[in-house]
Amino acid sequence: MTRLNKTHDPARTSWVTSANKADTDFPIQNLPYGVFSISDGPRRIGVAIGDRILDLTALEEAGKLTPGGAEKVFADGVLNPLMALAQDVWSSTRAAIADLLDADTGDRSLPLVAQAEATLHLPIFVRSFTDFYASREHATNVGTMFRDPDNALMPNWLHIPIGYNGRASTVVASGTPIHRPNGQLKRPDDAAPRFAPCQKLDIELELGAIVGTGNVMGRPVTAAQAYDNIFGYVLLNDWSARDIQVWEYQPLGPFQSKAFASTISPWVVTREALEPFRTPAPDRIKPLLPYLQEDTPNNFDIHMEVSLAPEGKSATTICKTNYKHMYYSSAVQLVHHASSGCAMETGDILGSGTISGPTKDSFGSMLELSWNGRDPIEVDGGTRTFLEDRDTITITGWCEGAYRIGFGNCEGRILPAVDFGG
Amino acid sequence: MTRLNKTHDPARTSWVTSANKADTDFPIQNLPYGVFSISDGPRRIGVAIGDRILDLTALEEAGKLTPGGAEKVFADGVLNPLMALAQDVWSSTRAAIADLLDADTGDRSLPLVAQAEATLHLPIFVRSFTDFYASREHATNVGTMFRDPDNALMPNWLHIPIGYNGRASTVVASGTPIHRPNGQLKRPDDAAPRFAPCQKLDIELELGAIVGTGNVMGRPVTAAQAYDNIFGYVLLNDWSARDIQVWEYQPLGPFQSKAFASTISPWVVTREALEPFRTPAPDRIKPLLPYLQEDTPNNFDIHMEVSLAPEGKSATTICKTNYKHMYYSSAVQLVHHASSGCAMETGDILGSGTISGPTKDSFGSMLELSWNGRDPIEVDGGTRTFLEDRDTITITGWCEGAYRIGFGNCEGRILPAVDFGG
Repeated sequence: MTRLNKTHDPARTSWVTSANKADTDFPIQNLPYGVFSISDGPRRIGVAIGDRILDLTALEEAGKLTPGGAEKVFADGVLNPLMALAQDVWSSTRAAIADLLDADTGDRSLPLVAQAEATLHLPIFVRSFTDFYASREHATNVGTMFRDPDNALMPNWLHIPIGYNGRASTVVASGTPIHRPNGQLKRPDDAAPRFAPCQKLDIELELGAIVGTGNVMGRPVTAAQAYDNIFGYVLLNDWSARDIQVWEYQPLGPFQSKAFASTISPWVVTREALEPFRTPAPDRIKPLLPYLQEDTPNNFDIHMEVSLAPEGKSATTICKTNYKHMYYSSAVQLVHHASSGCAMETGDILGSGTISGPTKDSFGSMLELSWNGRDPIEVDGGTRTFLEDRDTITITGWCEGAYRIGFGNCEGRILPAVDFGG
Repeated sequence: MTRLNKTHDPARTSWVTSANKADTDFPIQNLPYGVFSISDGPRRIGVAIGDRILDLTALEEAGKLTPGGAEKVFADGVLNPLMALAQDVWSSTRAAIADLLDADTGDRSLPLVAQAEATLHLPIFVRSFTDFYASREHATNVGTMFRDPDNALMPNWLHIPIGYNGRASTVVASGTPIHRPNGQLKRPDDAAPRFAPCQKLDIELELGAIVGTGNVMGRPVTAAQAYDNIFGYVLLNDWSARDIQVWEYQPLGPFQSKAFASTISPWVVTREALEPFRTPAPDRIKPLLPYLQEDTPNNFDIHMEVSLAPEGKSATTICKTNYKHMYYSSAVQLVHHASSGCAMETGDILGSGTISGPTKDSFGSMLELSWNGRDPIEVDGGTRTFLEDRDTITITGWCEGAYRIGFGNCEGRILPAVDFGG
């Protein structure tokens, strides 16, 4: 069951001609939101269209766009005021923007900016960041490596969307350099831990679901509501320090091993833009409890890739996978998250968990790709087990059908660790 | 090494005579900040003095108080704008308020409100909530019950201030009723989990440190800086669903078992008010790594008590303990939290972890007091192992010396679980 409307019409084209190319991430059927600035000017809200950005802040100031009749929705340099509006307003705003950009009905005088001239910023104020663990293949791989190959999945995994609270303060926009973190490291044979730069710096390829509509504390959310409460999606790299993690995580879970940075792509692709690409979750190995059962297909068919470029070298694709493999959809994750009475809020990010597929080239972390260092990964000019300083990681993702819905790039480059003695 | 000044002078009295009583929580040496309203009016910033509140919002509007020369510090109904100022401004503002309330130098025309007529609100916007696990006695008790009595402390515990990210959206003010959470429960012999109201609803007696001054992502904080970055402290009850926790927490830590509510006391006692009560941390069983070593005594001698009142019955004190027992101070917790490069922000709360002392009557959770249900706790009209519906829990805390620095009450009453089917 998908809910298609005129904004999904594949025959539609834009007067912004770069949006009509077959390989663009941003045709008129996409219309993702972002935050940009030009030459150190103030932050403005925009929609990506082809290789341009439509300046919604200017449109609002000119009275040409008033989402749901609200004022100053695009005035604060962050998407939260739009996300806090009701989902019918998200839908009518999307339809209005599509009409303005339509090749037949559009307004060719609208303010456009070249993406190449804009700086893209963190698009949302991240209220809270929750990270899940929803790929059965990833959880099985990790359990096989670190626990028991014969009982790789924890007993709870097939019943609960396992997740933990992450750190909102260090979610950053694509392009932000990432310092290699320091932390406590202890190998099994070491007598005591030492404080040193991480030696097993890793990526986690994820999709981030951004909550638009929250719930009141104490009031749960159903699966049908949850799907509609999600405003949109971004690519997410949950940088991870495996050696810090293995020493710190018992018994309360990952902490500083994940706290130093998480990178998201700059364009928020709306849930509505993904409607044509809905797919059902994989078959259930054990039945889920009724509160977690979905009546609709809440996964999406999103192809995702990771590339690694050493300094001065070419990028090598090290992973190709698809979000559709995830055992728990973001809607089901949201239901579980609110089931205790937890209040979900506008601007919350729900990380999907590392997206690993069934084949070795589809694993979403270097931990899995190199099997914890056993199998080096070939890259331009050498090999990798984990990240080295000045490596650049780029995640891309897109849906492919009658048109392509792309997410843009989610990129980060590793800088050396900061000297803590200073 | 304590840093005392005129605001700590025990000889000082106030023209607000209720502040001069020996048993008041709020003498002129305390001056905790809170947020209040009168008869559904707007939220205002106040300072508790005796049984009154000094209305700082009114003082600012009248031009009688201008922290550091900044404008509209007390205009937003939340303490974050004050906390975001530098610590020398916190100190000069405290000194100015003390002068205004002084029996000799004060201004008796200032706007006072009776605490009995005011509604107290959540005093801060909670940016992020981190919960630690810093009582050796608590960690030992839990490890003894659930893991191995002979190796109750995890190997990392004596080296790392173990903590995890909690949920900021459900930190609530004292007096907010708490619904018993629903969640997945599975006893060891059950074939599958069920979704039902928590049967082991518990408290965790904690102290919450509130971060005033943050750090830039990637830039660590030293122990000396960390102490000064903390604006103040509140009492904290980290409500916990033990049966949800035991089924969900492997391998990523507590999630919905802690997400439904955490209650804090309404008055933020400033770090400066606690200066006379500084104490050193307990002796180190193993030396800490250099980055975690403190040159100053960063614990505090704070007596704390928990009472339980069944509906219509008297309150019984079920725990008496002291914050001074904590193995890791909040300053050291903050150092560790930022050591990976994690950005700490104004409004972050660092929960101390459950404060359990060495004796059975000093344990800070019902899990420990009842030894996971084995030893029922006597209360008025019956016994308890965990909380029943309509029980009220009240935490109090105070420092006692030449005067008393009190925190007020941190209270919550349990309501029945919400019917999820609705």
